[in-house]
Amino acid sequence: MSAPAFAAADWGTSSFRIWLLDGIGTVLAERRSDEGMVSAGTAGFATILDKHLGEMGAAGDLPVIICGMAGARQGWVEAPYVTLPARLDDMIAGAVAVPGLARDVRILPGLAQRDADAPDVMRGEETQLAGIAPLFASGHQLVCMPGTHSKWVEARDGAVTGFRTWLTGELFSILSKQSILRHSLGDAPAAAMPGDAVFRDACSQALAEGGDVGNGLFRIRAATLLQNLKSDDAAAKLSGLLIGGEIASARRTFKAVDGKAILVASGGLGLLYRAALDLAGLTVLSADADEAVRAGLFEAARRLGWTTRSAT
Amino acid sequence: MSAPAFAAADWGTSSFRIWLLDGIGTVLAERRSDEGMVSAGTAGFATILDKHLGEMGAAGDLPVIICGMAGARQGWVEAPYVTLPARLDDMIAGAVAVPGLARDVRILPGLAQRDADAPDVMRGEETQLAGIAPLFASGHQLVCMPGTHSKWVEARDGAVTGFRTWLTGELFSILSKQSILRHSLGDAPAAAMPGDAVFRDACSQALAEGGDVGNGLFRIRAATLLQNLKSDDAAAKLSGLLIGGEIASARRTFKAVDGKAILVASGGLGLLYRAALDLAGLTVLSADADEAVRAGLFEAARRLGWTTRSAT
Repeated sequence: MSAPAFAAADWGTSSFRIWLLDGIGTVLAERRSDEGMVSAGTAGFATILDKHLGEMGAAGDLPVIICGMAGARQGWVEAPYVTLPARLDDMIAGAVAVPGLARDVRILPGLAQRDADAPDVMRGEETQLAGIAPLFASGHQLVCMPGTHSKWVEARDGAVTGFRTWLTGELFSILSKQSILRHSLGDAPAAAMPGDAVFRDACSQALAEGGDVGNGLFRIRAATLLQNLKSDDAAAKLSGLLIGGEIASARRTFKAVDGKAILVASGGLGLLYRAALDLAGLTVLSADADEAVRAGLFEAARRLGWTTRSAT
Repeated sequence: MSAPAFAAADWGTSSFRIWLLDGIGTVLAERRSDEGMVSAGTAGFATILDKHLGEMGAAGDLPVIICGMAGARQGWVEAPYVTLPARLDDMIAGAVAVPGLARDVRILPGLAQRDADAPDVMRGEETQLAGIAPLFASGHQLVCMPGTHSKWVEARDGAVTGFRTWLTGELFSILSKQSILRHSLGDAPAAAMPGDAVFRDACSQALAEGGDVGNGLFRIRAATLLQNLKSDDAAAKLSGLLIGGEIASARRTFKAVDGKAILVASGGLGLLYRAALDLAGLTVLSADADEAVRAGLFEAARRLGWTTRSAT
């Protein structure tokens, strides 16, 4: 095994992932935990980082590049948002060094859209964008990044020029657990599958309704009462409705670049969005979200000169 | 004080209200509690009803007419839904007698829209509709009934021909308490006021976006981070977004009867909807929801012959 050139971490609100990478981006080691910003606020960011690096056998001076909520105001050290339009260079130049540590630790900034009528922010997704930068280096592109807070990003000739957030994952979670729909979905419905007719029908209906999701939510409850809708089907219906609604809403928002999208996602959620984007008639290019964030962190490290440093 | 001719109760999911009325509908006494269907399921519907009637000094054989969730499958005695199209007569004919009691107790049924693509149900609102029946006795009318689950009802020549439910009140509650927006709204934001510019702007923006609410929710969070939006303003923005979105969505759904609406609401929520319907450019006729439900219960009692019985 080659020696690590640096460590890269994606530090989210509720999750933490760290990799040791060599000078060409090979993953030498990986650790994941639920020590996100929320628990790190109590335990201490430096303590958590050192613990994981120690258990991975990393040298005490191995540099670390970090993206995500560690750079939020309520995180470790604030890495102020870079304002749109933003290029990869702007973002990497905005990295903030954490002071007072034995090792070199840098936190990448998020992006801010400071429009009076459509303010928006991201932290973490910008690093995935950096990782897939070659895919939107030219032309007018639309990137779909599904998740708890789905982001849709517009890029022109390699610069991020606009983005918008949909609370799709969070809505699914709170509607299925806290709203009247919990009686329809039950305690642990199976996750929707991309080929499921109920998912696809709900998705198509939502796509046809231009992002108007509100008029369909209670139909799920009524279908339980009047049509004996099963709990797994109720979950598939809610999933199709929210994902279809998000896509329809995003297409309305980014009309100018309609017809194609770059999907950055992983696992089952990626497959659901792929199916939904196909139903919407969009031409889709898929990229893996996990690989994208690592590639973005690698690119930042490369520009910092860390990929050519001699191994310790 | 004249003697009561009968008692009338509106038994909801989480609230219970009962009135003693004389033969011309005068309210002689009123009680409200939180002994809705949920607590009544444990304590017993008959026990709660008798306790309140006893404390109001009602005779043991005073008849009682009830609407709401007491007639649900998981309620006291199921009063099966009346299927659309439904007239006032159909609804009152569908009242179910509670067996085995010393007094005559009837529960009014809800309404069901059994369309394969747009199933929907209501329990309680149909009695408000009965109370305002003269307002939609002729022509093509649209009735807006805001609440936890807002109902919009289409009527033709006095018959209810269609309706749809929006989870507006419930969405406001779970988004403000359970989602990332709780950081923007804080613990106890002031309720929005109908003249508030933030409420009105959010409402107008949502009206212009055709019910596409999803694309606006995260803007509230971003405005807190980038524009120092205050918590009361965040609440007004969420309220305006959801109410404006509901109205835009309802207008899309009931295109054929656009231009006017009958608003059935009470208190502050009624004032907010009135302002929002005005912003939408609709001609509005307002009716008080509390009076409407009592009038509907009175009409049902009248048809049962209870308003002319000799007082006990």
